[in-house]
Amino acid sequence: MASVEAKEHDSQSLTPTRDLGAMVAALKADDIPESARRWAKHCILDWIAVTVGGAKEPLTEKLLAVAVAEGGSGPARVIGYPDKVVGSQAALINGAASHALDYDDVNERMLGHPTVPLVPALMALADEAPMTGMEMITAFVAGYEVEARLSDMTGVAHIDNGWHSTATIGTFGSAAAAANAMGLDADQSTAALGIAATQAAGLRIMFGTECKPFHAGKAASNGLLAARLAGKGFTSRENAIEGENGFAATQAEGFVPLPVYPKSNGRFAVEENLFKYHAACYLTHAGIDALRKLRDEAGIKPEEVVAVREHVPETHFTVCNIPEPETGLEIKFSMRHTAAMVLSGIDTGAMNSYTDEAANRNDLVELRRKVEIVAKPLDSRMQAEVVVDLADGRSLVGKADVGVPAADIDEQERRLSEKFMALVAPILGEDRAQQALDACLALDTAEDAARIFDAVTG
Amino acid sequence: MASVEAKEHDSQSLTPTRDLGAMVAALKADDIPESARRWAKHCILDWIAVTVGGAKEPLTEKLLAVAVAEGGSGPARVIGYPDKVVGSQAALINGAASHALDYDDVNERMLGHPTVPLVPALMALADEAPMTGMEMITAFVAGYEVEARLSDMTGVAHIDNGWHSTATIGTFGSAAAAANAMGLDADQSTAALGIAATQAAGLRIMFGTECKPFHAGKAASNGLLAARLAGKGFTSRENAIEGENGFAATQAEGFVPLPVYPKSNGRFAVEENLFKYHAACYLTHAGIDALRKLRDEAGIKPEEVVAVREHVPETHFTVCNIPEPETGLEIKFSMRHTAAMVLSGIDTGAMNSYTDEAANRNDLVELRRKVEIVAKPLDSRMQAEVVVDLADGRSLVGKADVGVPAADIDEQERRLSEKFMALVAPILGEDRAQQALDACLALDTAEDAARIFDAVTG
Repeated sequence: MASVEAKEHDSQSLTPTRDLGAMVAALKADDIPESARRWAKHCILDWIAVTVGGAKEPLTEKLLAVAVAEGGSGPARVIGYPDKVVGSQAALINGAASHALDYDDVNERMLGHPTVPLVPALMALADEAPMTGMEMITAFVAGYEVEARLSDMTGVAHIDNGWHSTATIGTFGSAAAAANAMGLDADQSTAALGIAATQAAGLRIMFGTECKPFHAGKAASNGLLAARLAGKGFTSRENAIEGENGFAATQAEGFVPLPVYPKSNGRFAVEENLFKYHAACYLTHAGIDALRKLRDEAGIKPEEVVAVREHVPETHFTVCNIPEPETGLEIKFSMRHTAAMVLSGIDTGAMNSYTDEAANRNDLVELRRKVEIVAKPLDSRMQAEVVVDLADGRSLVGKADVGVPAADIDEQERRLSEKFMALVAPILGEDRAQQALDACLALDTAEDAARIFDAVTG
Repeated sequence: MASVEAKEHDSQSLTPTRDLGAMVAALKADDIPESARRWAKHCILDWIAVTVGGAKEPLTEKLLAVAVAEGGSGPARVIGYPDKVVGSQAALINGAASHALDYDDVNERMLGHPTVPLVPALMALADEAPMTGMEMITAFVAGYEVEARLSDMTGVAHIDNGWHSTATIGTFGSAAAAANAMGLDADQSTAALGIAATQAAGLRIMFGTECKPFHAGKAASNGLLAARLAGKGFTSRENAIEGENGFAATQAEGFVPLPVYPKSNGRFAVEENLFKYHAACYLTHAGIDALRKLRDEAGIKPEEVVAVREHVPETHFTVCNIPEPETGLEIKFSMRHTAAMVLSGIDTGAMNSYTDEAANRNDLVELRRKVEIVAKPLDSRMQAEVVVDLADGRSLVGKADVGVPAADIDEQERRLSEKFMALVAPILGEDRAQQALDACLALDTAEDAARIFDAVTG
């Protein structure tokens, strides 16, 4: 044990690229306990819902148009369309579509969106060759684990340096997921991570443009390419992450290599996944949840509200504090307006609550002007505290923390199923939506994983 | 004039992304003088030669195998193969093939390889839709110009930070070339550069692996995608290069924005292109040229050589100073061995001079041990000075500078034609090689640029 501990503290001797590669290659279906399996299913289910929702966004249409203009056709399907293209194109399009609404899930260690780079790569592979449901789940867990562990090493400096982790870290995740799904060995999986490292890109300056969702698609597509090339014996560097002129040196100041164990102790990073139930910036969610709870418990009516104070970390101010939003998109980055929506009983989970019209509705404008956003140091940036002053003189106090993974996985499944139906049914109809949902929930026993996409493609 | 000068010196007010985009959109065939046109033809001609040479390298085969395994087929051709794939795949494969031998051209401002990211993107476009020879030349000049000008701004720090400029800067070049070829306007061309910025990647740690040539293919393919998306109205940031969390902030410490004029004063960066006539690392070339000249002028025979001193900048020592190479690849990074080859009259331009056998040939080993590499500060890293001590007591002194673009363009054409035939004829036969060469040399009057690839594909 002494030597293991010594190794842990001598970061120079650590070999994270190789260790992550070995971990990816070693992970088998039997290593995934029931709980992690359900979490993975929830991620994939939620991914399908947000991708159906994002499929008709203009950016998705443009990406598909480019693929079609290239004149290619292949075996890989595109969610929401009848087109079949080659896998690298499909991963790009589906990946971008799934991040288009910014309604996809979140991981705190990654400081980004873990699922959108992973599922598109696995879907492309499943469309090419048989893959069982458990194979898809295992590969997904492997990719997720790499994202979380690599993020522990790159830390917040990577983001502070200007990189979009969904894009950069996501490329490694996609490569890892694809490598596991393709059954690559440890050396090949390490090479896949190396080829991912030298493709990893995506700048934070692109936030607010169509390039942000594009990043998720590129991560998926580039990671898939990395694994495919590694499978053909393409050469790379086995210290691509930690070596001189490698990923850490170029993109993660203060990188701290950490030991990587081939298996987690039964608890996988996927079990820390945070789902979005409101179609707005994640940093508005704690305030929304705190107010919802107060509203429902005390039966608050909008006309009774005199004033609201929402206490949040100061760092929120540059992210989601548009005081007077004028468009549907701006609402998503307005703590004041989303607070007014909650107090008015509007469904913050429904896409059609975020319209230009809603941004300018008189009653909501009036109500949001009663909301004051106050900076307050809290234990985490995932928390918020709210105080609502009512006409009868009462002041109600509430708080919420959206950085805590769900404790009740049945309840999570219920909420996600609700979100799924709310997103998918209006587009594909109740029957197909239900069919897709049922297929997702049965993924771990599916013989052919690709079937879960049948109801949402074609 | 005063205000223009003031603007030049107030770097904060400069808008290089937009200015480069405007330059790309403005460049027309009529702006390209005869001289630049010939230089561009030479680059394209040389690109075809090195791509034919690199087409059968294992890395090219692996990339093609992945494209074929994806099940796609399209209109875009692959040099050296009968396969037709989609444009993004073809640009990747052809781009990697063209850098596989590391025998492609060089630009000192870029500190990298300017042509390999450009031609593959243009070839894919020419295979999809009609493009005249002058349209291809104009687009090529636009892409080259962006590479050189952006490199002036990012400087050597970009390389020092660990990036491979052929990959990163090349992505912008490819986007610019494709944007010009597609006739994008200034806003769209600016968007293309932005979408290129957020894909730019490629790490120096990969030197010596198959990922190095892969970078050139990715640059070509990603740049092409950027232009295609911009053509569909995909949104990006018009300050993607210079803005906060943009390309310069993340990848080019000490970035200096420079003014960009819509047209050069008749002299384009392409006219500074440096071609490789020896199939070894470019930093061995000045020594080779200096020794060749002495050998030919004085009729030196290997058995007369007592000692050789080759004076080069100290920075060469970590790049191409393998004293006792054991493989053909290692010869390419051995100033001593390449010196011995020259003095033995071996053709340093022929690929088959660089074999494992040649690395261990007794007479060459004996001769290279007489060569001493001496560090000396010279005016540029493109220079070398040599001293050869002969058995008769004479000491001959020579020097060469391979950083000076050719002054005699007819002579350049003759040498490049020789190189073309030496690379292509052994693979495709004398007739097809001559046919391809003739087509290249007539590119500026070609109605259909794609025809120059006919003899080297299919």
